[in-house]
Amino acid sequence: MLNYRSHNCGELSPKEVNKKVKLCGWVQRNRDLGGMTFIDLRDRYGVTQLVFNMDTDSELCEQARQLGREYVVQVEGEVKERSNKNLKIPTGEIEIIVSELTVLNSAIVPPFIVEDETDGGEDLRMKYRYLDLRRNVVSQNFVLRHQLAQETRKYLDSSGFLEIETPVLIKSTPEGARDFIVPSRMNAGQFYALPQSPQTFKQLLMVSGFDKYFQIVKCFRDEDLRADRQPEFTQIDCEMSFVTRDNILETFEGLTKHLFKKVKNVELPNFEVMTYAHAMENYGNDKPDVRFDMKIKDVSAEFKGKGFKVFDDSEFVCAIVAENSAGYTRKQTDALIEFVKRPQIGAKGMVYIKYNEDGSIKSSVDKFYSQDDLLKVLEKAGAEKNSLTLVLSGDKDHTLAAMSELRLEMGSQLNLKDSETYCPMWIVDFPLVEWDEDSQRWHAMHHPFTSPIPEHMNMLQDNPGEVCANAYDLVINGVEIGGGSIRIHDKELQKQMFKALGFTDEEAQEQFGFLMHAFEYGAPPHGGIAFGFDRLCAMFGGTDSIRDYIAFPKNNSGRDVMIDAPATLNNEILEELHLLKKEPI
Amino acid sequence: MLNYRSHNCGELSPKEVNKKVKLCGWVQRNRDLGGMTFIDLRDRYGVTQLVFNMDTDSELCEQARQLGREYVVQVEGEVKERSNKNLKIPTGEIEIIVSELTVLNSAIVPPFIVEDETDGGEDLRMKYRYLDLRRNVVSQNFVLRHQLAQETRKYLDSSGFLEIETPVLIKSTPEGARDFIVPSRMNAGQFYALPQSPQTFKQLLMVSGFDKYFQIVKCFRDEDLRADRQPEFTQIDCEMSFVTRDNILETFEGLTKHLFKKVKNVELPNFEVMTYAHAMENYGNDKPDVRFDMKIKDVSAEFKGKGFKVFDDSEFVCAIVAENSAGYTRKQTDALIEFVKRPQIGAKGMVYIKYNEDGSIKSSVDKFYSQDDLLKVLEKAGAEKNSLTLVLSGDKDHTLAAMSELRLEMGSQLNLKDSETYCPMWIVDFPLVEWDEDSQRWHAMHHPFTSPIPEHMNMLQDNPGEVCANAYDLVINGVEIGGGSIRIHDKELQKQMFKALGFTDEEAQEQFGFLMHAFEYGAPPHGGIAFGFDRLCAMFGGTDSIRDYIAFPKNNSGRDVMIDAPATLNNEILEELHLLKKEPI
Repeated sequence: MLNYRSHNCGELSPKEVNKKVKLCGWVQRNRDLGGMTFIDLRDRYGVTQLVFNMDTDSELCEQARQLGREYVVQVEGEVKERSNKNLKIPTGEIEIIVSELTVLNSAIVPPFIVEDETDGGEDLRMKYRYLDLRRNVVSQNFVLRHQLAQETRKYLDSSGFLEIETPVLIKSTPEGARDFIVPSRMNAGQFYALPQSPQTFKQLLMVSGFDKYFQIVKCFRDEDLRADRQPEFTQIDCEMSFVTRDNILETFEGLTKHLFKKVKNVELPNFEVMTYAHAMENYGNDKPDVRFDMKIKDVSAEFKGKGFKVFDDSEFVCAIVAENSAGYTRKQTDALIEFVKRPQIGAKGMVYIKYNEDGSIKSSVDKFYSQDDLLKVLEKAGAEKNSLTLVLSGDKDHTLAAMSELRLEMGSQLNLKDSETYCPMWIVDFPLVEWDEDSQRWHAMHHPFTSPIPEHMNMLQDNPGEVCANAYDLVINGVEIGGGSIRIHDKELQKQMFKALGFTDEEAQEQFGFLMHAFEYGAPPHGGIAFGFDRLCAMFGGTDSIRDYIAFPKNNSGRDVMIDAPATLNNEILEELHLLKKEPI
Repeated sequence: MLNYRSHNCGELSPKEVNKKVKLCGWVQRNRDLGGMTFIDLRDRYGVTQLVFNMDTDSELCEQARQLGREYVVQVEGEVKERSNKNLKIPTGEIEIIVSELTVLNSAIVPPFIVEDETDGGEDLRMKYRYLDLRRNVVSQNFVLRHQLAQETRKYLDSSGFLEIETPVLIKSTPEGARDFIVPSRMNAGQFYALPQSPQTFKQLLMVSGFDKYFQIVKCFRDEDLRADRQPEFTQIDCEMSFVTRDNILETFEGLTKHLFKKVKNVELPNFEVMTYAHAMENYGNDKPDVRFDMKIKDVSAEFKGKGFKVFDDSEFVCAIVAENSAGYTRKQTDALIEFVKRPQIGAKGMVYIKYNEDGSIKSSVDKFYSQDDLLKVLEKAGAEKNSLTLVLSGDKDHTLAAMSELRLEMGSQLNLKDSETYCPMWIVDFPLVEWDEDSQRWHAMHHPFTSPIPEHMNMLQDNPGEVCANAYDLVINGVEIGGGSIRIHDKELQKQMFKALGFTDEEAQEQFGFLMHAFEYGAPPHGGIAFGFDRLCAMFGGTDSIRDYIAFPKNNSGRDVMIDAPATLNNEILEELHLLKKEPI
């Protein structure tokens, strides 16, 4: 069989010196140095240097000089060791002395430079995404994504899970985010919906007896988009029967460790299990970044009642301590005050206390507090000498949230977020319900099939606000990677739950009747979890942007600017779908 | 950690005798034999017999007797060897003497019996698909499907392919089947479409330099449904760069052999490569079932010109020979005549010739042909003694098609389609274009990016009807499992192709401009293939029905009768999607 190539552009090394090889790829650079012409030939595996010599074959060398950027070529030649080695790239020790050159395809001039460092802005690169994907820094993201998907499947397969495909054309559900909908041609006036998750179907699969289900699956949400949201996204979706919470945590801690080991060669520590209450109290956040300590301390008692009105009028005063930071300048503390006053954070101001190396204390509220008062605050906050203590106040929820942001900012400023360190943890015991002021009733935090923790089963009727859900999130370095819950499988408990949520029987029936009916035929105890796969890829790649890990992403208006979708349709199609009322003549 | 169970219901054997075990599952049968009660406990792994003894624990036995069908229970007990072994099931040598019983969930009476043999009709089983899926004969299909997907990924991964997800919300294209469309809320009056295949995107990935792509992916076609079609279906979609046809055939012959070996432990022979012309000539079909020979023979010359008007007026007369079948009765041959006259087959009649063991010949056209004439036909047809030769006539295309059906019917009647034999083959050299009488122009048989075979490159302009496409189908036992082609990557050839298809430059630009534009930036030589994954699963499972291998299929009206989708939506939602014109007040 005749093959286009013997090797790819990323694998030749001094081992192959003097070997005859055949390569295919794209012309990344073409440098005419008079007597010699050098071409960097690129494919997705790397870049190999081609050499053409005017002295030995002037015709071929002339031909090579004509090759424009991004031409597709096939070359034959001999591998030689370079005199001038480039040890930054894997193929940098060799080059190819070309003896034959075939142009497989020409190329018009690309709109930006197709190299790791490019001059193309985001918009241009998205419009020509197929060229952007040629850049090795981008294409490597999809090698990573492939590996993660592959290893996920290997692990779950070897743990006895079955991957089962659930339908994409389903039925719209009233709760949750907005559905994308699909008009039916064969059923006039009716619509399918695209799934926001396979939640209902995976629970049905448990009713069917598939005790370990997973799927790496596209999900759809018609929401207004933020930078890190996409209308279509991918989940690792899982569900298990005859399991407790701890069975599930153990399984997916195992999966996460497997992925880190196989894909990044990182041995993760055992996962800390932290309650939601503890996370909120100490980090102001249900997805704390615990790569650094800097816990939030309640200093209300120490600060209040000394005549400083701002604190006296506050429900809650709290502090964090930045170690080795007494040297912060006025300009730096002013910048922190500006930071917390940004509308996204919304604090009214910030107080700071410098605890100097010599034991002296300097604060922005020296007028109101004696050194002794401040020392008590510092003691409570756990401040050592040469530290900077930052204080926020207000109502408890907002102050904790603002302090969480300030804490993360300080972590960045002090380089405490080591990119090589991974701190995985389970957050558990979330509130089951939250009070909604508008509708004056309790709402399910997750969904109404989430079970309370076993210890709180009996509190549902009288004290729903205090009940903890048997729900869990996987958090790594401040990023929520996955979440799930043990579901309610008991009819009586489900009735109580609906009652607590203020549903009438009819409402419950209308919205959830189908699944409840299926449950009547013998639902096993079950629970599950879903991982945001795009987010997981971004975390493994070390970035925040999920878009870099989606081959053809949409922009913030939900548009694919490359193919220019969505687009208008002609009226014939709309009429066939019963979307156009025929105008009276 | 407390576990719900120590074993599943399919794994206990005499090895575990006297062991304490804990099982969970569904009550499949409950037999009260007076002193003893036996329960068949089912999960997706199998069925285990539970024993309750009135003498040793009457309370527990009473409790067991109350368990209805499909109750979910947990039991603890000891494994004992059965005196009365059932060697038909893997757990048939043991039973569990139960000491503890916990009802995890009750169940109302199911609408049909949830056992391998069920009394539920298709409609009922589809409505309660979650119960149908509990039957082991059904759930095993999804174990098979999982294995096939898993092994496909392993093979392609180890061959250097990357699985890359292409978008689901794309743009409608004018050619091909009807798209499902999705109205955009954020872009009023505009629509996404769901992909009929990732064709455009996989070709773009080749332009991007991903030289080996695959994806197991959902595709969507809004067509009127037949029994073996689904509006959403799954493809193993693949594309490669810098490859010839033979590279692709080798790779996917390798995949197919791998799947048969790993999943069915069948060693496939090397794949026969057969041209389309040869297949049509000899089997009347481009997906021949070659488990049995019975080739179609052209007997026009032998039959025509003897005064039998039916044959004399026919363009084409052809025969097949059924060996060892001279004993066919009049009733049987009449039934065959009825068979070929069915409107789906459309022959006007059928002639038969019996070649008896004693050398005598008896035919339905003895009036018109001498024994000598018939002997010449039999010789041409390759008939031996004790055979039945069947003859059809008419215009060539329809007659070959009808004869193909008759051949398959004879294969079935004579038990020549051995279900344990697999005859995989590549059909190649399909026609590139076909003449469309309506529009009086050539149409692409596959799509307009399919390349001619290298030898026919120069015939495109003058003689398009004779050009062979560089396309290939994988056929096993008469079923088309996959197909693909080498694509055109050369701009000049593409222009010629559009010209041959009668497209103006403007039309070509409007319909395919986007992909053609991308190709201008350096498209590599490339080609690909797609396997119908649902069909592949059905073939491995030994059935024709893809529906059995889809967890939640739709019926022939495109409805999911279980969740009752599609469904109506309220006007608020439609208004938000710009689908409702507001009525003037």
